[in-house]
Amino acid sequence: MAEDLAGKIAAELKVRMERNKVPIPIGVSNRHCHLTKEHFKILFGASAEPKRIKDIKQPGFWAAAETIEVKGPRGSIKKVRLVAPYRDHTQIELAWTDAHILGVNPPVRESGQVKGSAGALLIGPAGQVELKEGVIVAQRHVHFAPKEAAAIGVKGGELLRLRCGTGGGRSTIFEDCIARVSDKYSLELHLDTDEAYAAGVKTGDLAYIV
Amino acid sequence: MAEDLAGKIAAELKVRMERNKVPIPIGVSNRHCHLTKEHFKILFGASAEPKRIKDIKQPGFWAAAETIEVKGPRGSIKKVRLVAPYRDHTQIELAWTDAHILGVNPPVRESGQVKGSAGALLIGPAGQVELKEGVIVAQRHVHFAPKEAAAIGVKGGELLRLRCGTGGGRSTIFEDCIARVSDKYSLELHLDTDEAYAAGVKTGDLAYIV
Repeated sequence: MAEDLAGKIAAELKVRMERNKVPIPIGVSNRHCHLTKEHFKILFGASAEPKRIKDIKQPGFWAAAETIEVKGPRGSIKKVRLVAPYRDHTQIELAWTDAHILGVNPPVRESGQVKGSAGALLIGPAGQVELKEGVIVAQRHVHFAPKEAAAIGVKGGELLRLRCGTGGGRSTIFEDCIARVSDKYSLELHLDTDEAYAAGVKTGDLAYIV
Repeated sequence: MAEDLAGKIAAELKVRMERNKVPIPIGVSNRHCHLTKEHFKILFGASAEPKRIKDIKQPGFWAAAETIEVKGPRGSIKKVRLVAPYRDHTQIELAWTDAHILGVNPPVRESGQVKGSAGALLIGPAGQVELKEGVIVAQRHVHFAPKEAAAIGVKGGELLRLRCGTGGGRSTIFEDCIARVSDKYSLELHLDTDEAYAAGVKTGDLAYIV
């Protein structure tokens, strides 16, 4: 009985130690939007197309030249960057600091789960969209390519704890980091600006599973 | 030897379990300023005095009616609340989100340790102060009355780890929470707005030493 328990603890510690060895680069997401083609055309004009200005680390995604204004009952934020390509649902990802400025109360959600989330008015140079739902605070998450996940036994949907910011007076363990595994992904912990500032970290700093 | 180790581990676990039982209320600090009498008079006029509008939880401190504008090289923030009474050194406490708006780079510091910190321009209705140092990001800290600290064996200056936000999708363990013990204090974990949003907590929510 005691030996069974000792064996289990030893196995668990071994997994933890293996996982803890892998440095995971942090990517800090500023507020941004994903738009449907329909909404893009309303906001920027029927003949407009998103202009690529910078690839982002996750393969296939890129920052566009286009930005919109997002307006809520209390205030508004200009220059919210479009991340392309088009999506099936328009989604505005804010930090709660941003949500407080707008006066909206978005839920913490995984990307794509916009049902029943908050609304806002979207304003572009060619028109406006009254968005009923789509405003979320992104659940923090770790992108893994399948090989990277398999190497340390991580499964998609698993909740991980990651430590970062050590040595800067704001060492933080972020729990509830959801693992997302796809061959379109590359190893990265995504935090929003509130989370990054709370831990005193920036894009390219390293986090460790604990 | 093994028994010594077992004894040490058991003692350590006992302390942890005792500490973990105490719910610690969270107080979220919005950006604010503390002013010397001299700076107050420059900003608000020689005959002005701070007007008390609300006591805050820590005994002897209160929010004043007066606010100032704080300006940096990139931007400015209006309505930064004065927390009275007067101090020996003017101190501006910002979240890093605020610092980013201003374009300043304040260090993480304990309150009062302003030497070599960031500067900013302070603007009041009666005048301006070019502050050379005094802008900080507050190190997160736990206030204890001496009895409260003694009950769980916490010493002033000790670095604690506190978990909060459990159940909201943003459970977070804040490390580097410095214990501050004084008979002028009452039990409270002080977080800034970045930290509170990162964990999805608000004033009055509870944290636990882990």
